[in-house]
Amino acid sequence: MRNVTKENITDTFLGYFGDDTDPRLQEIMQSLARHLHDFAVETKLTHKEWQVGLDILRRAGSITTPERDEFVLLSDVLGLSSLVDMVNSSEEGTSSSVLGPFHISNAPAMPMGSDLRGDYEGELILVEGRVLDPQGNPIAGATLDIWQTAPNGLYSSQDPDQDTYSFHALFTTGDDGRYGFTTVRPVSYTVPTDGPVGDLLTATGRHPWRPSHLHYIIKAPGFRTLVTEVFPDDDPYLDQDTVFGVRDDLVMKYLPQKAADFPGSGYVLSGKVAEDYSLVDFDLILTAE
Amino acid sequence: MRNVTKENITDTFLGYFGDDTDPRLQEIMQSLARHLHDFAVETKLTHKEWQVGLDILRRAGSITTPERDEFVLLSDVLGLSSLVDMVNSSEEGTSSSVLGPFHISNAPAMPMGSDLRGDYEGELILVEGRVLDPQGNPIAGATLDIWQTAPNGLYSSQDPDQDTYSFHALFTTGDDGRYGFTTVRPVSYTVPTDGPVGDLLTATGRHPWRPSHLHYIIKAPGFRTLVTEVFPDDDPYLDQDTVFGVRDDLVMKYLPQKAADFPGSGYVLSGKVAEDYSLVDFDLILTAE
Repeated sequence: MRNVTKENITDTFLGYFGDDTDPRLQEIMQSLARHLHDFAVETKLTHKEWQVGLDILRRAGSITTPERDEFVLLSDVLGLSSLVDMVNSSEEGTSSSVLGPFHISNAPAMPMGSDLRGDYEGELILVEGRVLDPQGNPIAGATLDIWQTAPNGLYSSQDPDQDTYSFHALFTTGDDGRYGFTTVRPVSYTVPTDGPVGDLLTATGRHPWRPSHLHYIIKAPGFRTLVTEVFPDDDPYLDQDTVFGVRDDLVMKYLPQKAADFPGSGYVLSGKVAEDYSLVDFDLILTAE
Repeated sequence: MRNVTKENITDTFLGYFGDDTDPRLQEIMQSLARHLHDFAVETKLTHKEWQVGLDILRRAGSITTPERDEFVLLSDVLGLSSLVDMVNSSEEGTSSSVLGPFHISNAPAMPMGSDLRGDYEGELILVEGRVLDPQGNPIAGATLDIWQTAPNGLYSSQDPDQDTYSFHALFTTGDDGRYGFTTVRPVSYTVPTDGPVGDLLTATGRHPWRPSHLHYIIKAPGFRTLVTEVFPDDDPYLDQDTVFGVRDDLVMKYLPQKAADFPGSGYVLSGKVAEDYSLVDFDLILTAE
């Protein structure tokens, strides 16, 4: 194998593997190398273009911190993150969607019916629904880890003016599988554009916007954890989410409601709502582990 | 295109491109995205495996400096760097091979016949040959930028004990196209293994060795620049260069010579050699631009 050629380099690469290499690692590296090699041959990638690619990775490395991960963002805008979600998504249950870089762990447990608005002003929304199994039975004891942007388009982890857990909450369902809370309508926002990923978006004529959404991580004993997002059907970026997160079954409606129609009980705001609001009614279906 | 799926995500990605995107950039991104997407689908890459990949990139970023580029090394051990060389290599001339991360610019011009050994001890070799066009005509005015490891296996850029341009030289051919110099025999060495690339080599049962070699960058007016390496046929790592640099036509022989046979003129060491030495006779063929 002394004479490495365009034709035999992938086999040469595989031939270097030790006999006791983990078979799954071997499978992944084989597929990765074959696709990278085919990419270079198909495009006849020049040294200069290869350097441009390396420079994107070097710049991503130099801008990445625990709070700002340019490699995840690169994976996101290339559609790779969404594809990893989709190949691991259950066919039966609610689709998964990208976790994104803004989730923070250990959100405070809150009573069902809580209000997430804090001191923020914005369009009031009431979000409710059920956590169900594929047969439509309610799942009790499911935890819903919820997070969203503040009205300024920033998550608390990006925004020094917000408390750590601003617009974050953890709810646990009862026997009826129901959840419900009030908050302000989340807004569309842009992914960070001050790094190499922003330059790549600009160079390919792409905008950096994501449609507004609510994030959910739902866990329940005996069920697969669901990481997902829910998008309103009237968002201007719904058809062009820059990170490819939208799925048909993750699109919901804001249903306009009169103040007087606000539920009389079950919510912190019950009896205190003087403004019209919007209702989101969204069920989430988990599948067995 | 609201419902992004495993089947349509590559087309969705391409559909986001602006109409005035540079066609070559579009071609490259199209091929890259398609191959990354196919990789994720074929392997059914899990979130955990995706995170392992991201972590390799993050660790590569944190270890990379202007002197130590882990992204280049990753490209090298995946065979991508060599493949970029091969797809851009001329069919007619001497094969190109990887530049590697150890080249430093502006090596000092030296008279033909110089000795590169400095104060270092090692097996004396005499390297000579011609720079030719594909028809076998000598090329005058070609510059040969030469570099190699010291006997300790380190390049000067890695080794604080060496002078900046230790084992580096720049020669210019005369009308006969000939070049020649004396040096010590370069040695096999390992690529850096203290980063994520080293871990990847270990996990796949690969050694980190490169066969010993002499580096050349040859430039001449009207000809394509040739970046290459030349390897001895008796190196134990010749058949398993961890960066895939070896090509049939880049393999040379060390021909044993008696001290008394050293050329009587034309070399700094002429008349001063008391030890047996090895001769390397290697012609390099450039192709027209």
